[in-house]
Amino acid sequence: MSPRPEIKDYIRSIPDFPHEGVMFRDVTTLFADPRGFRMAIDQLLHPYAGVRFDKVVGLEARGFILGGAVAHQLSAGFVPVRKKGKLPGRTIEQSYTLEYGEATVEVHDDAIKPGEKILLVDDLLATGGTAEAGIALIERLGGEVIGCAFIVDLPDLGGRKRLERLGMEVHALVAYEGL
Amino acid sequence: MSPRPEIKDYIRSIPDFPHEGVMFRDVTTLFADPRGFRMAIDQLLHPYAGVRFDKVVGLEARGFILGGAVAHQLSAGFVPVRKKGKLPGRTIEQSYTLEYGEATVEVHDDAIKPGEKILLVDDLLATGGTAEAGIALIERLGGEVIGCAFIVDLPDLGGRKRLERLGMEVHALVAYEGL
Repeated sequence: MSPRPEIKDYIRSIPDFPHEGVMFRDVTTLFADPRGFRMAIDQLLHPYAGVRFDKVVGLEARGFILGGAVAHQLSAGFVPVRKKGKLPGRTIEQSYTLEYGEATVEVHDDAIKPGEKILLVDDLLATGGTAEAGIALIERLGGEVIGCAFIVDLPDLGGRKRLERLGMEVHALVAYEGL
Repeated sequence: MSPRPEIKDYIRSIPDFPHEGVMFRDVTTLFADPRGFRMAIDQLLHPYAGVRFDKVVGLEARGFILGGAVAHQLSAGFVPVRKKGKLPGRTIEQSYTLEYGEATVEVHDDAIKPGEKILLVDDLLATGGTAEAGIALIERLGGEVIGCAFIVDLPDLGGRKRLERLGMEVHALVAYEGL
């Protein structure tokens, strides 16, 4: 680790997880380190200095860790987007395509009010499928997504371009080429 | 809502979730409100003013939201305890008994170092099974659990007594009698 460690110094790469051929970028080692975690939250928020957010939306499950910290730092509310069946109240749901099959995420239908300004956060931007579904849920409730912030971007999987095509401003701390 | 709202004013109660006869205490309405979320994190940390923690351990999944915020506030690291199979690195695991059957949680085996001072957080303390498993994992790695903090305590389910029998200091913001 360099004398002034950077975000990438804290991220661990694990081959063949969750299945063969995938190089998994593990941010838990970043989160577990007091300096790493603080650096990550601070850098995640740099582009939004002076911007007022009503709520931070985090994608299950690692997006909850980041989202909780970011919402607290901003004195905003936190809203979880969860896999179907986990939220106890009335929800709206959004399905999206995975490599094999389909997944569905939900949000409470009263969690975001029309006109509220939202920051979407997750640890990693890959194909952008979950993030796009999250954006759709926020917008269906009338929320305005001001930014989408991630620790890791895997640009070769196309997520950044996909979100930018939706008009989103995408912010990521580090990028890894390849899969 | 009262002029000076309290934690309970933000918590929503949903009957028959996740199954009939259960009154579910839903903290997502607390988290979604900027004042509510900040109040919750501040009150959660009141007993620990002046205490130094190395890491905050959060239990999947709502404990991640709280844990991220608390770790950031304390400038500590954050360590997730997850359901089996979700963590990419080498783990140790702990099983515990549920009402019907058994569950297993894991932690990365290098996430906590011997002697580190740990705050365990989750949204809700019911039977205390998951919390006890989390404590066991932390202690097997040599960590010292200084406190266990929850938003909601359901004392009739026995979790507080169970953790206190282990020598834990339990802190909860609100309690609901009954099931």
